[in-house]
Amino acid sequence: MKICVYPGSFDPITNGHLDIIKRALKTFDEVYVAVLHNPEKEPNFSFAQRMKMVKESVSGMKKVFVESFDGLLVDYAASKGACAIIRGLRAVSDFEFEFQMALTNAKMQPRIETVFLMTGYKYSYLSSSLVMQIARLGGDVSDLVPAAVNKELKTIKKTERGK
Amino acid sequence: MKICVYPGSFDPITNGHLDIIKRALKTFDEVYVAVLHNPEKEPNFSFAQRMKMVKESVSGMKKVFVESFDGLLVDYAASKGACAIIRGLRAVSDFEFEFQMALTNAKMQPRIETVFLMTGYKYSYLSSSLVMQIARLGGDVSDLVPAAVNKELKTIKKTERGK
Amino acid sequence: MKICVYPGSFDPITNGHLDIIKRALKTFDEVYVAVLHNPEKEPNFSFAQRMKMVKESVSGMKKVFVESFDGLLVDYAASKGACAIIRGLRAVSDFEFEFQMALTNAKMQPRIETVFLMTGYKYSYLSSSLVMQIARLGGDVSDLVPAAVNKELKTIKKTERGK
Amino acid sequence: MKICVYPGSFDPITNGHLDIIKRALKTFDEVYVAVLHNPEKEPNFSFAQRMKMVKESVSGMKKVFVESFDGLLVDYAASKGACAIIRGLRAVSDFEFEFQMALTNAKMQPRIETVFLMTGYKYSYLSSSLVMQIARLGGDVSDLVPAAVNKELKTIKKTERGK
Amino acid sequence: MKICVYPGSFDPITNGHLDIIKRALKTFDEVYVAVLHNPEKEPNFSFAQRMKMVKESVSGMKKVFVESFDGLLVDYAASKGACAIIRGLRAVSDFEFEFQMALTNAKMQPRIETVFLMTGYKYSYLSSSLVMQIARLGGDVSDLVPAAVNKELKTIKKTERGK
Amino acid sequence: MKICVYPGSFDPITNGHLDIIKRALKTFDEVYVAVLHNPEKEPNFSFAQRMKMVKESVSGMKKVFVESFDGLLVDYAASKGACAIIRGLRAVSDFEFEFQMALTNAKMQPRIETVFLMTGYKYSYLSSSLVMQIARLGGDVSDLVPAAVNKELKTIKKTERGK
Repeated sequence: MKICVYPGSFDPITNGHLDIIKRALKTFDEVYVAVLHNPEKEPNFSFAQRMKMVKESVSGMKKVFVESFDGLLVDYAASKGACAIIRGLRAVSDFEFEFQMALTNAKMQPRIETVFLMTGYKYSYLSSSLVMQIARLGGDVSDLVPAAVNKELKTIKKTERGK
Repeated sequence: MKICVYPGSFDPITNGHLDIIKRALKTFDEVYVAVLHNPEKEPNFSFAQRMKMVKESVSGMKKVFVESFDGLLVDYAASKGACAIIRGLRAVSDFEFEFQMALTNAKMQPRIETVFLMTGYKYSYLSSSLVMQIARLGGDVSDLVPAAVNKELKTIKKTERGK
Repeated sequence: MKICVYPGSFDPITNGHLDIIKRALKTFDEVYVAVLHNPEKEPNFSFAQRMKMVKESVSGMKKVFVESFDGLLVDYAASKGACAIIRGLRAVSDFEFEFQMALTNAKMQPRIETVFLMTGYKYSYLSSSLVMQIARLGGDVSDLVPAAVNKELKTIKKTERGK
Repeated sequence: MKICVYPGSFDPITNGHLDIIKRALKTFDEVYVAVLHNPEKEPNFSFAQRMKMVKESVSGMKKVFVESFDGLLVDYAASKGACAIIRGLRAVSDFEFEFQMALTNAKMQPRIETVFLMTGYKYSYLSSSLVMQIARLGGDVSDLVPAAVNKELKTIKKTERGK
Repeated sequence: MKICVYPGSFDPITNGHLDIIKRALKTFDEVYVAVLHNPEKEPNFSFAQRMKMVKESVSGMKKVFVESFDGLLVDYAASKGACAIIRGLRAVSDFEFEFQMALTNAKMQPRIETVFLMTGYKYSYLSSSLVMQIARLGGDVSDLVPAAVNKELKTIKKTERGK
Repeated sequence: MKICVYPGSFDPITNGHLDIIKRALKTFDEVYVAVLHNPEKEPNFSFAQRMKMVKESVSGMKKVFVESFDGLLVDYAASKGACAIIRGLRAVSDFEFEFQMALTNAKMQPRIETVFLMTGYKYSYLSSSLVMQIARLGGDVSDLVPAAVNKELKTIKKTERGK
C-alpha cells in the first residue's frame, strides 16, 4: 500500500489544496493531510479552526485522513509508513524554498521522497494568503475555498486595507 | 475621458515613478497619483513629506493629480471614475505579488483593469529602497530621483551600513 | 478617443486572446485586432482562415475591429491614431522577448506606449500552440477556444505525437 | 499495484535520469522507462543505441522495465495500467514546457497524473545535451553517465566546437 | 597585484563558500574574506565564533586572509587595495538583491567591480540557512560544511521543527 | 599578470560589450576579445566585418587585444595564459545556458574560471539582436553601438518587419 503525507498549515484550506489532495489520490492509496500545529508565523485561524475546516472539506473523501503534527515532518511521515511527501507546484511557486525543503527532508530520511504535483491551471495564483487578502477586503471568495471555509471567513472582522 | 490611478507609497518617489507617470499620460487623459497613507512597513518618510515630494516632482505636469488614500484601492479608483490601475513593470519585478494584487483588485471591482507599463530600460533596477540604500551610505542619487527628493535626502542622517 | 492595437498571428485565436480584448475594452474606446499577415514561422492556419476565425470570434463585440498588417507595427498603429499597443501577460510569458519588443517599438515611435494586461488566471497556461498540440492529439479544446475555432480545428488531420 | 511511466528520448541516458528512476521506485511498484522512438529533433544516437544503453544502465534494477513507444504517451501509459507519468524537475527546468505538457496529458487522460520528482542536487545542471557537448569536445563524462553510455560515447567522432 | 574581497556573514561558512574562495584564487592574487561584524538579522553564531570557524576552514590556504569589517564595504575594499568584490552565484540566487548590491557598490566606488563566480554544481542549493535547518533537526551536515563548522554545530541545542 | 578572454560572435559589437570590456580592465591586466570565426547560426556580418568593427571600437583602449578563434575556447584561453573567461550578465540572461557553458569549460580546463560581470544597468536589455532588429526597421541605434558599427549598419538594406 502506498501512503503519502500532505503537510501544511492550511490557514485556511483552499480549493487549490483540495485539488492537490484529489490528484494525490490517483497515485497513492491513502493521503494523510498533516496540519502543522504551530506554524512559524502567527496563523489567521487557530489550530482548532484549521483542523475543523480541513476535516469538513474532505469529509466526503475516502482514504483521506486529517491529523496534526508538530515535530519532525519526516518522523511523522515514517510513523505513518508513508513513502512520499506531497507538495503542490504552481508557476509562481517559491522553487528555492521547495527545493531546500525537499533536500532537507531527503537528508533526514532518504527513504521518503518529495513528490510535486502540479496544481490545476485554475488554481495557478490561488493561495491562503490571497484568500485572506480578498476576504479581509470584504470580497467574495466562495469560488476559491470549500464551503466550510467560506462560512468561517464571513465571521472575520473586515479590515480596511489597500495597497 | 479615460482616467487612471497610480498607487504607491512613494517612499520616496524616484525617476522611475516619474517615467511611469509620463507613460501613463500617453494612454490616459488624467492620472491620479495615489499616495498610500499608511504603508504596511515603517516608511522612510512621513506621509506629509512623501506627499510634498510627489507634488513638487509632478508640479509641471498637467493632468496629473496627487491625492492620498487609505481604504480600499478599488473603491478609491471607482470614486475617481478610473478605468485602470497602473503598475510599473521591471525585469526584476515580483510578478507573483503583482499578479496576486491584480487578481485581488479584479475580484473586488471587475470594471477596473490593472494595466502594466514597462519602466524605461534606464530604470530597470531603480527602486525607492535602492535610493535609500545609496543615500544612507552617503552616495549621490541626484540622477535617480527628482530634485525635490534629492534635497530632502540630504537631510537624512547618514548611517553606516555595508553588506 | 483612446485607440489601441492588439497585434498577433492568432494562429488560432484562443479564449485567452478574447479575454485580453475584453479587458482592453475597459480602458480603450476602440481596439484594433491586427492579424499579422506573414508570421516568421509557418502558421498552422492560412491568413484567410486566421482572419475569418478572429472575425467570427469578435463578431458580437462593438468597438472591436479586425484588420491585417504586414509592415511596421508602429507605423500601422500610428496610421490608426492609436496611443497603445496591447500585449497579454502571463506568469509564463517570455519577458525578455516582450521587453525587447516594447523597447524596439518605443525606439521607433516614442508616442505609442506598450501596455501589458494580465491574462485572466484561467488562461495562465493557454496559448495557440497548446491548443494545436491538444487538437492534433485528438483532444477536446472546446473550453479553450471560441466556437469558430473549435469547428475549424475538427477538420485538421489528426497526427500522432507524444513526448 | 502502482505503476508509473518515465518517458524520454534518453539521448543518451544520464546519471540524472537514473537518479529519477531510483526515486520513482520509492513511490511506485513498477517503473516503465518509455524510450521515445522518434523524437522531434535528430537524435545523437539511433533508437537501437538508445534502447541498448538504457537497458544496460538499469539492468541491475528490479521492477524497472524498458520499452519503446511512439504514439500517444497517455495511451501508452493507460495500456500499462499506469497512474502516473514521471518528470524530473531541476532548478533550471523549462517550467512552461513542463506545465504545458502536464496540462495536455491531463486533458487527454484525466486519470493519469503527472508527478514531478526533484533531481538530486548533484544533477542540477546535468542533461543529455550537456553530456554530448562535453563528450564532443573530448572531455571526460565518466562521472555524469552510466558506464554503458561512457563506453558508447568514446566511439563518437570528436568534433571541434567552442563558443 | 590583483586583490579581491569576499564579504559575507558566514553564519556559518559552508563548503560552497570555500568553493568560491578556491575559485577566486585562480583569478586573484589575494583574497580577503571579510566577515560582517553586525549582520542585519540575528546571527546563528556570535561574531567570534564565525571568525574562528572561517579562520580554521581556510587555515591551509595561502593568500587567503580573514578579517572583520563593519562600515562601508567599498571603503573596506578600497583600504585593502582591492579591485573586485566577489559574490557566489547559484541557479537559485536572489538576482534582484545581487544586482542592486552591485549597483549600489558601483555608485559608491566606481573603481571596484563586483565579480560573480558560479558555485560548483554540487553546491547549487547549499546555503548557511539550509545547513542550520538540517543541523537543528539533528541531521548530518558533515558533507556540507568544513570540519571546524561541523564540530561547532554539534554543540547547538537541537530544536524540533518541521514544515 | 592576470589575463582574461572575452569570447563572442560580436555580431555586431554593442555598447554593452564595450561596457563589459571596460569593467574587465578593472580586474585584469589584459583582455583578449576573442571573435568566434564560425558561429552556429548564420551571422549578420561576415567575420571580416565583425573583426573590423570590434578593432575600431576598442582602438583607443590599451591592454585590449582582438583576435579570432575557432577551436576549443579553453584551449585558446590556455594558449594565451588566461586565468578567466569573461561573460556579461544581465537580468534577462539565459542562466541555464551560461551555467552549462561554465560547467563545460570547467570540465575541459579546471584551471580557467568563468567570471561573470554585471552589465551596466543602461545595457540591461541591449543585445546584438535588439540592435539588428531596430536597425532593420530603420530605427536609430547610434546610442546603442560604437560609431564604427553605426556606420556599417547604415549600409544594411532595410527590410520591413513587424510583429
